[in-house]
Order: sequence, then C-alpha cells, then structure tokens
Amino acid sequence: MEARAAVLKEFGAPLEMQRFPLVPLELGEVRVRIRAAGVCGSDVHMWRGHDPRTPLPIILGHEGVGEVAELRGGKADLFGREIREGDLVLWERGVVCGRCYYCLIKKQPALCPQRKTYGISFSCQDPPHLLGCYSEYLHLRAGQPMLRLDLGVQPEVLVPATCSGATAAHAVETSGLAPGDFAVVIGPGPLGLFALAMLLDAGAGEVWVAGTSADTRRLRTALEFGAANTLNVSAMTPAEIHECLLDRTRGVGVNVIMDCTGHAPVVNQWIDLVAAGGTYSIPGIATPQTEVSLELFRTIARKNVRLQGVWVSDTSHLWRAVNLVASGRYPFENLITHTFPLEQAPRALEVTESKEAVKAVLVP
Amino acid sequence: MEARAAVLKEFGAPLEMQRFPLVPLELGEVRVRIRAAGVCGSDVHMWRGHDPRTPLPIILGHEGVGEVAELRGGKADLFGREIREGDLVLWERGVVCGRCYYCLIKKQPALCPQRKTYGISFSCQDPPHLLGCYSEYLHLRAGQPMLRLDLGVQPEVLVPATCSGATAAHAVETSGLAPGDFAVVIGPGPLGLFALAMLLDAGAGEVWVAGTSADTRRLRTALEFGAANTLNVSAMTPAEIHECLLDRTRGVGVNVIMDCTGHAPVVNQWIDLVAAGGTYSIPGIATPQTEVSLELFRTIARKNVRLQGVWVSDTSHLWRAVNLVASGRYPFENLITHTFPLEQAPRALEVTESKEAVKAVLVP
Amino acid sequence: MEARAAVLKEFGAPLEMQRFPLVPLELGEVRVRIRAAGVCGSDVHMWRGHDPRTPLPIILGHEGVGEVAELRGGKADLFGREIREGDLVLWERGVVCGRCYYCLIKKQPALCPQRKTYGISFSCQDPPHLLGCYSEYLHLRAGQPMLRLDLGVQPEVLVPATCSGATAAHAVETSGLAPGDFAVVIGPGPLGLFALAMLLDAGAGEVWVAGTSADTRRLRTALEFGAANTLNVSAMTPAEIHECLLDRTRGVGVNVIMDCTGHAPVVNQWIDLVAAGGTYSIPGIATPQTEVSLELFRTIARKNVRLQGVWVSDTSHLWRAVNLVASGRYPFENLITHTFPLEQAPRALEVTESKEAVKAVLVP
Amino acid sequence: MEARAAVLKEFGAPLEMQRFPLVPLELGEVRVRIRAAGVCGSDVHMWRGHDPRTPLPIILGHEGVGEVAELRGGKADLFGREIREGDLVLWERGVVCGRCYYCLIKKQPALCPQRKTYGISFSCQDPPHLLGCYSEYLHLRAGQPMLRLDLGVQPEVLVPATCSGATAAHAVETSGLAPGDFAVVIGPGPLGLFALAMLLDAGAGEVWVAGTSADTRRLRTALEFGAANTLNVSAMTPAEIHECLLDRTRGVGVNVIMDCTGHAPVVNQWIDLVAAGGTYSIPGIATPQTEVSLELFRTIARKNVRLQGVWVSDTSHLWRAVNLVASGRYPFENLITHTFPLEQAPRALEVTESKEAVKAVLVP
Repeated sequence: MEARAAVLKEFGAPLEMQRFPLVPLELGEVRVRIRAAGVCGSDVHMWRGHDPRTPLPIILGHEGVGEVAELRGGKADLFGREIREGDLVLWERGVVCGRCYYCLIKKQPALCPQRKTYGISFSCQDPPHLLGCYSEYLHLRAGQPMLRLDLGVQPEVLVPATCSGATAAHAVETSGLAPGDFAVVIGPGPLGLFALAMLLDAGAGEVWVAGTSADTRRLRTALEFGAANTLNVSAMTPAEIHECLLDRTRGVGVNVIMDCTGHAPVVNQWIDLVAAGGTYSIPGIATPQTEVSLELFRTIARKNVRLQGVWVSDTSHLWRAVNLVASGRYPFENLITHTFPLEQAPRALEVTESKEAVKAVLVP
Repeated sequence: MEARAAVLKEFGAPLEMQRFPLVPLELGEVRVRIRAAGVCGSDVHMWRGHDPRTPLPIILGHEGVGEVAELRGGKADLFGREIREGDLVLWERGVVCGRCYYCLIKKQPALCPQRKTYGISFSCQDPPHLLGCYSEYLHLRAGQPMLRLDLGVQPEVLVPATCSGATAAHAVETSGLAPGDFAVVIGPGPLGLFALAMLLDAGAGEVWVAGTSADTRRLRTALEFGAANTLNVSAMTPAEIHECLLDRTRGVGVNVIMDCTGHAPVVNQWIDLVAAGGTYSIPGIATPQTEVSLELFRTIARKNVRLQGVWVSDTSHLWRAVNLVASGRYPFENLITHTFPLEQAPRALEVTESKEAVKAVLVP
Repeated sequence: MEARAAVLKEFGAPLEMQRFPLVPLELGEVRVRIRAAGVCGSDVHMWRGHDPRTPLPIILGHEGVGEVAELRGGKADLFGREIREGDLVLWERGVVCGRCYYCLIKKQPALCPQRKTYGISFSCQDPPHLLGCYSEYLHLRAGQPMLRLDLGVQPEVLVPATCSGATAAHAVETSGLAPGDFAVVIGPGPLGLFALAMLLDAGAGEVWVAGTSADTRRLRTALEFGAANTLNVSAMTPAEIHECLLDRTRGVGVNVIMDCTGHAPVVNQWIDLVAAGGTYSIPGIATPQTEVSLELFRTIARKNVRLQGVWVSDTSHLWRAVNLVASGRYPFENLITHTFPLEQAPRALEVTESKEAVKAVLVP
Repeated sequence: MEARAAVLKEFGAPLEMQRFPLVPLELGEVRVRIRAAGVCGSDVHMWRGHDPRTPLPIILGHEGVGEVAELRGGKADLFGREIREGDLVLWERGVVCGRCYYCLIKKQPALCPQRKTYGISFSCQDPPHLLGCYSEYLHLRAGQPMLRLDLGVQPEVLVPATCSGATAAHAVETSGLAPGDFAVVIGPGPLGLFALAMLLDAGAGEVWVAGTSADTRRLRTALEFGAANTLNVSAMTPAEIHECLLDRTRGVGVNVIMDCTGHAPVVNQWIDLVAAGGTYSIPGIATPQTEVSLELFRTIARKNVRLQGVWVSDTSHLWRAVNLVASGRYPFENLITHTFPLEQAPRALEVTESKEAVKAVLVP
C-alpha cells in the first residue's frame, strides 16, 4: 500500500505530491490516517528557507488530527483508555527523551535537548518516510502520547490546538497573569487568537487585540472571541495608542502584553506600556531576528517588569488547548477560514503567507 | 534640643555637618536615636548627582537601626508587641499609601506610585528636617512599620539588611529559583553578597560569584559566605568563563544569574550563559543606563528565558533579610569592613565609591 | 439629620427600625448613602444567635454599595482617582491594621488579628452608630479602601461581590486549580454560584454543581452561569454520584471540590471523589461545627490531597469579584431574586434562611 | 552466574538468604552491583505484614546505590552523560508509564496509576528475580532514570536520599513554606531529619524538632543538622508545648508543621499550633490509620490552614535530595548509625524497628 504526501524539495518552490510505501509497524507504533492537517506560520518559514535546519526533502505538517488506521501492540491514551483502529485521535507533535534533566527534573519537556518534531525535524528520504501531516498517513513512533477524541468537535477545528493553541497555553502559563489583569495581544493570527482565548479563560479582566490594516479580518475574529476592543495600529500614532490604553487602565498600564507578531522591533514600540510588575511575553519569536535595543532601567528594572521567552510547548499545554476548544466557550470554528485538499498544499501556504486566511487546513 | 546631621548641599561636594531642632511629635510619630546608618551605593550616586531627582539639601541615609528616643501615642511593632522608649528597632525605609492598587490588589507596595523613601525623597529644608539616617535622630512618621529587635545581633550588622538585604530578597523571590539550581551572582558588593546568601538559603545547589580584579576582597568574603567558587572576570576571556560554567553545570548552563553590577552592558556578556528555562535578574540596575542590544530569539525566546527587573523592596523583604541575618547562618559581620563617626560621612562615601569597603557604616 | 436603620436587638426576634443621628465626620471619613445592601447567610446566623460574639444591639449588613453623601478631606480610590460627593462607590468590608505580620509580611490582611467587619463587629450603641449596611447611611472610618464605580452595573447586582464574591475569589486562589481541571461546587447559594463563575473564569475545564431538592431554583441558576451539569444529591445514592463523576472524569476524579455548604459532615460524603493531587476547599464553613472523622491515609495522604481552609477575603479578592461581575461574562443579575425596602429586612432574612431567595437585597 | 539476596518469605519471620541466576539483559537494561542498600521504615512495615499488598516472596530494598556491572545498549544519565560499566550510579526507585495524565499533564509522576517500586511491588519468584536492593545485584529495566555519581560522597550516605530524602523534598515543595517561616518537624527519623534539612535549605527562619524519650539519639542528631531547638514531648504537657512555641513565634504559631511520625492521632495534638495561613503536612502517613476527628472550623477553616497529603516522590525530588546531600551543608553522614553485611538484614530490620538506629544500611 502507498500514501500520497506533499513534499518540500526545494525552498520556495511549490510542494510536490509524491507516493511513499507504508512500512510495517514496529511494536507500539501507530499508523494514523490524517483527517486534517494545519498550515502553520512556521511551515511558511520552512518553505521559504528561513529555517536553515530544515532537512530536505521533507513532508511538512506538525499539526494534525486523524484516525487510527493500524497499530501494533496495545496502546493506551493519556487517560489510560485503549486506543483501537478507527478511533479519532491527536498526539503530541514533539518527540522527547522522557529521561533527562528537562523532562524529569525541570518538568519542561519542551526544553529537552533531544526534542524533535513531526513535520519539522525529519526528512522523508528514509523509511518510515511519513513523519509529517501533509500526507494521507502519518507514522507515529512507539510511546508517542496520544489522546482519543470523543469531544464532538470537528477535526479541522481541533487542528490548530496542536501547535498554536499549545504554544499559547505555554505563553499564558509563564505570563504571571493574575485574574482581573488587563492584557493586550499584538498580532491576531492563530497564535494570537488562541492567546486571546487563553487569557480570557485565565480570568483576564479585559483583553484588547492589536493588528495592522492587513489584519482587518483577524481583528474582527478577535471581537467574536471576546476581545474587549481592537486596535488598528496602522491608523494610530504611538502616542494615541499609549493614551488610549493608559486611559482605559486607569493609568496602570497593561499587566500582560502577549506579542504574537514574531517581529522583534515591535518590542520597543510596546514595552513602555507594560504596567509595573507586569510581563512582556514573546511567544511569536520563532526565528532569528535583528537585535533590539532596550533601555533596561526605564523599561524593565524601574518597573519590576518581566520579559519572558516562550519556546514551543509540551503535552500539558496540548491538553489545555484541546480542552479549551472542546469547552465550546470560544468560536474556534471561526478560525478555519480555508480548507484545501492535499494537492493544494502550495495554495494553502500562499493564503497563510498573505494573511488572507486566518487558518488554512488541509483535508487529505 | 538639637540633632547633628551630615547634609548634602551640593552634588560632589563633601557633606556638611549641620544642627537641626527636634520638632514635637504628632500622634503616632516616633523619634529614633540612630545607632548605625549604612552607606549604600545609591548614596554615592546621589552624592555624585547621578540621580537628578535628589532634593537638595538632604540628609542622606536610608539604611538604619536605632533606639526609640521618644514616641507619641501607643505603637506596636509588626508582631503587635508594644514599642517603648529605649527599644532597639528598625523600620521600613519606604513610605507607601497602603490603600492603592499596588498596595492592596497587587500586594506589591514597592510599586506604590506614591512611594517615598527616608534618606532619598525628602529634603531637610523644612520641618521635621530629620528624614535621613546620616543623623543623630530620625523622625519617623505615623504608621511606619517597625520591628522591635531582640535578636542579639549588632546594630551595624543589621543595617545593610534594611536596603541591600531586602532588595536581594525581592530579587530571589522573583527569580524563579528552584531548589538545587545553579546560580551565579555578578558583582560582589553588599547587594551581591546578600543575594548570594539568599540564593543559598533558598536551596540553590551551588552559587558562584563573579567580580573584577577590583573586587578581590569582596570575592574573598563571598567564599566566606559559602560561594562554591569565585571568578575574577578581569583575568578570564569570555570563552573561558563559558567553558568553565558549562562544564560545571554538565552543559545545562546557569539557572539563575543575579546581575548586581548595575552596569547594563554586562547583560550581553552573560545572558548566553543562562540555562534554558532560567532567569537573568537585574536588581543592580538602579539608574538610567545606556541601551543594551539583544538578539531576542537566541537569548530569550529560543530558551524560554526570563529577563526580570527588580525594583526596591517592601516590608516582607525587609523581614526576610533581618531574619536571615539573625539566623546566624552567614557571616554578615564580615560585610562591615569600615565604621565611621557621623562627621566622617564624606570619607565613608569615598571608601564606598572606591570599593575599598565592602560595607561602610556610620555610628552617630 | 438622622438615618433610619434596621437593628438587631434580640437574637431571633425581628429587626426593629430605629433612627440614629448623623455624627460629624473626622478627617478622612466618608458618609455613604446606601443604595443596596446584601443579605448574607451569615446575617441569618447572627440573627439566630449562632455567632455568640455578635455585639447587640447591632445594625447588620456587611455587603453594600452606595453613594458618597459627605466626606471630610481629600479621598482617593484604589486607582488614585479622587472620590467626590455623589460618586457611586463600594468599599472593603474588613477593617485591618495595615501594619502587622499578616498585613505586610504574609500579605494576607484577611488574617490580621485586629480585623473587624462593618455590619458584624460593631454595635450601634455608641457613636458613630452607623457601622452596618442595613441602614440609610454608613459611616466609613478614615483610610478604608474604596472603589469608585463607573462600571455600568446596577448597585444591587454588585452587592454580593463585596462578600460572597470576594470569599469565592479567595477560595479559588487557594485551590490550586489548574486550567483544564474538572471541578465540583457543592451548595449553590451565592457563595457557590460565585465560586462556579470564578472556577470557570480561572479556566476550569468543566464545573458541575451539586445541591439538594431544596436547591432546585439555585441549580437552574447554576446552569445559566455555565455549569456543565447539576446534581440533585437528594435523588441519588452516593454510589451513583461516584460512578457518574468518575465516568465523566475518565476515572481521574474531581481536581477541585469547592464545598460551599458550610456543613461539615458533607466533607466525608465527597472527599473520596477528589482526584489524586487535588484539593477539597471549605470556604462555606464559617461557624463552629461538629467534628468530622477522617481516614487520613486513604483520603489525604495516599492521594497527595490538600484540605484547604478559606477565611473571608481581602481587597484583592474584592477587586477580583467586582471585576468579574463587571466583565458581563456571567448573568449575575440572575442572582438577585428578591429586593426589599429597609423596613422589610426581617422578611429578607426569612427568604434567605428558607433558601426561597438565591440572593435578597435591601434597597434603603 | 548467581547473586545472593535476602528474601522475605513469610511475614514476621527473618529474611532468608537465597541465590538467584543473573538473567540476560534486554536492550536498555542495566545490571547494578549494589554497594549500599537502605533499610526504610516501610521495609519494617512490609516485613511485619502491615502492607497487605506485599507480593511474597520478595527481595526488599527500594533505596540503593551501586556500580554498573553490565548494560546492554547505550545508556545516558539525567544529564545526557554516557553511563559505562564501573560507574557509580543511583536511580529512580519508581517505575512509571511516562505517558499518562499524571506523568505528562499534571507532571506528578508520583501519582501515575501504574507506578510500581523496586523492592516493594515485585516478587522475586519470576525472572528477572533481582528487583530489590537487599541483594548483590539489581536488574534495572530499560528506560529507568539514572544519575552517574561524581559527587565525592560515600554510597551509604547517599542511600537515604533515594527514598526518605526524596519524599522530604516532595513534602517541602508542597508545604507552602515561605522564607523566614517558623517550622516544626515531628518525628526525627530519617524522613524527619531530611525534612529538617530541606526546610532549613528552603529558607525556614527556624526549625524545631519534636520527638519522644525514645528519640533521644535522633533529637541530638537534629541539633547537629541545625535544628534551633528540640522538644521531648514525653516530658512536656500539651499546654507546655503550646506555650513554648507560641512564645517563640511571638504569638503567630508554627507556619509549617511537618508531621513525620506516620501516626494519625498526632495530628490532633498539634494542628492547633499551626499559624493562620499555615500548613500541616503529613508525609509520614504511609499505611492505613485509625480515623482522626477534626473540628474543621477551628483548626482549618477559621485560620486558612492547609492539611496537605504527600505521596512518595518523583525524579525531581530525588535529584533535589541527592543535590542536598552532595552540597555538604548538613552532616548526613551522622544519619548512618549502623551498617551490616547482607546476611544480617534481619538484624538491620530489628534496629530500625526499635529506633536503635537512626538509619541502617546494608553493604552487600
């Protein structure tokens, strides 16, 4: 038997469809029939060659939901429930050692030095080939944490929870947000919209969302998610933004700024708005950037401020994101603006790059 | 009756001795006979005019221990014990409103917008004049938190707890240190040595202390406090420092760097040594600095690192510092290398500026 | 000028209307024209004489919202905004010293040994008489924290935030709830319904609410607030309750049980349902109880469980509760099932005791 | 080849020496030559038949340090360092699934429903037989977390860190201890003495240790570890104990009581001494107990107190305990009062049961 997959062979060139053999499973391995694969901003970065570690040729796709097609040996999900053929499942996208200082002592497997990621770290050149979600089938190695889905949510709606959602959960967890705090999300892509929902669900008093004129559609979605207000920074001077937010926060400033733009110079435009004792979190920064020049006394030291890095996520964050989508409290279905068959993966990357889509999903 | 005090009248010029009348107390106020007043690095900054908000003329001195000379109305200490004339006491150096968002909701009175500090914020021009510790008497306003001392520790040894110690407690509290972590203190002045003791006492696995050739004496004191090792960075290349610390931490890096130098460019020399998930804390930065240029992806985002500002302290930190000194676990008496009578306050500032002293104390 | 108030003179007897003179204000004091006063379950306890410390005669009422009628000297609210005559305000119901170990070091003013409460601790016998909210006017002492209301919420809807809401915020804060956790509230009175909203707003995955047949109306309100399900324990065996909750939690059990019944024997009926690592919180227990017999190994030790007491609240919790009501995310207006004029305070106590009301409010 | 081991065949009867074959290793497995095996209080419980789940016949011993005798396949320790034959090592005593809700989402592998323990859960009847430390060799399954020792500490001194030490670390982690807090340890066995050291190392202001007349030797050891004082409760009335501790804590009470007696009735003798906002932790309770009758209002609710269960430990706690022993800050060598050859395991159990030993160690 064979599976069709969309393969990145050359940076910047359209992905090409290719067939791969389904190799036999070893004990504990699971073959998943992909039902929905998310197109992430970092897929665009990889396609464009901005992440030089990308091992070509590669099947992209680290966000996925699927159906168990085959498994070898018994397999239990996170709650100890047996997984059987035909079950709808999702899984942790990161592969970690489970035995090291970061996995067991720091309990931050996202920082495991051996962490690899389906759809990012593995070339499709060698067997088992199918290690990314832009494919009909995914070959999951033994021991990968899985969750059996009985949540009544569409696969394509759950897909972004497996990366953007989990990373947003990690960002909120490390943000120091206290209930009642005032927060701003900058950058209303899938990461930012998940951060918005997570902040609200962690008890933020109000969350505002800022974007540019290119984000009009996304800012509208932010309001549907419960943002108290949106700011189109293209149409405002820095002074207007400051005045507006200080007025709204009774002079306190913003307790948590969640910068999901991935664009380092944004930091200097916003960090002065952080309230004393607050946090500026940068979950969006996922590729090397130009340097940012900071006056540490005024922006950080004098105000007890925390500048917090956020690197990917672990299974606890995945669970949090899936749980939130399943709660039905936020209209996550509104995130999915585009679905494409596998063959149109190149087009899906384009609408993601252009921000035409809030989120594009492949349905193989 | 009158009190003698050392007054800063002109930036950079020697303090001058001056006599002030003892004004009558209002209800709840306390007059303290200063037994020991600490000379802090920020006193040097004020003397040199580096803090432009300094209200001239001023009696410097925000660190103090004294004896109750007079009080009007009943007064209880932090533990509800009556304070009487003759009691040895110390007090919170910050004056806060106690009724605002930061005092009551955030529970971070150090960030109270109305916070003022004895020895820093008040001129001696107007009554009650005596609002700094470089003086025979200090006039404490009603409601200032006080602690009756029955600890069997010398006043001069307790003095640095009231500022450096409290600030170090605040820095450790916000550092995210976990028991067993590896920490480095940069800058072995009183703040750094208190940070060393606080880190050890919070369960740090090992603490190393780094300084320059000018810090030889202070680095020796660090070893007496229990530093596992010291580094003279004047005698090492950056590569040597990195190699040495990565080797010692089995490749993990430093979980918490406590930068007590107050010198912003140091950040870029050390931040790459922070372990993934770790913290770079900057309690030493207390005056405006040149900007620091950071590559956020490599230093912060990719490693889940926190860059943490620390602004002064509150009464909880003061208590923590006093408690630590009283515990007898660390040789705080070794900090006090110089004592001077009040008249020699100019000399005390000099030996502090030159780092000849670890800590200088005035005994009025 | 005079004020009319409802006075408790004899335990169990109906409150009597009485007139009191308005005494002149001292510096910093504020006279408030009560717009809405909440009737709390502990008012019923006091009326019935179950709290033997009640100082007779007394004007009950520790929950209130009002309008500033008069003030002496400048007064700022929690955000530093000036308070003026005519402003709609609420205030901290607890009076604490602000200078002790619990206020400043532990930062838990709810535990201040000197804490007193308007409407609970003060007799109306002596001037200024008006120290409870079942009155036309309340006399607030100097320094009491206040919040100017510009939230667009009706006074009677905000009233329960000032006690039940704040206590629920304290309970959730100390519950160890993690986002995604499964929680159960037992006892759907105002405290329980606030706890429900607070748990949801802190990211609980699902919250179920349990009550008896007498709670039918309150359980319906719980569903309106977003409870995932309700349980009428009068109609179920313990085995059915266990089976139902273990099934729903995939065998894990309940991460947080918030027992708002105030009835100690309930603990033994539910504590076995706590998940390993979870919390059983008892914010409802506010009066002495019969002893409860616990098998500590099975219920607490073997499962890493926390049994958590919750005693009243402080201004941070008040702010949290007000903020939540103002967010508009939950239908707090549905709590207020009964309003009465001041004269009918006896009737208001009756409908509270009988659970006919979810929440009764006096509108003087 | 064969190994000799001490086997428990019948509850209460002396262990018998028996020879077992060394079975071939599977991939990832490690054979350890035991250098020191600790005798734990729960070994006595198992010997006496108080833990009815004990699978007979069994090789007891869950605390151990040893030398790698043989391994199959590459093996890295917690820091990614290669493990080789001849290395001195220790290992996590618990075997967990690493893939479930408790392992990955709650990050509390101690609560993994599949957790088993070397020396407790496995009979020696079937191959690989050697799954307890009262043996010349231990057969470690694939994937068990290990730490290569290069710490310069004697194996027998490290042994108690692998169970008592790790459990004490867990207890302190969940105790809510704040720096400067006053703590009391009840029960000065190895668990209690480790708790003492951990509390001090977490910044406790003072720690007192309470025991009975039978604990004279152990109380002396507590002083050597840095206890501020010891209490012989056999020689004091409850009123004397209360008075003494309230006096010392300036009326506040004990912030953290760490009850390491494992004897439930002790709770009622001490819980009233917990300070408001404090914690009563019960790490010692490891077997079913008689019920304890608590007046929840007075002891827990009115004072915001936490009653905290502590169940075993995970690898993070193991690391913490090893790190503490290696720090050299406490005289852990004083714990080891008795060493025996393997044949004298019955005698080692006896001196542990009688409290003649603080800690007994077998040196096979």
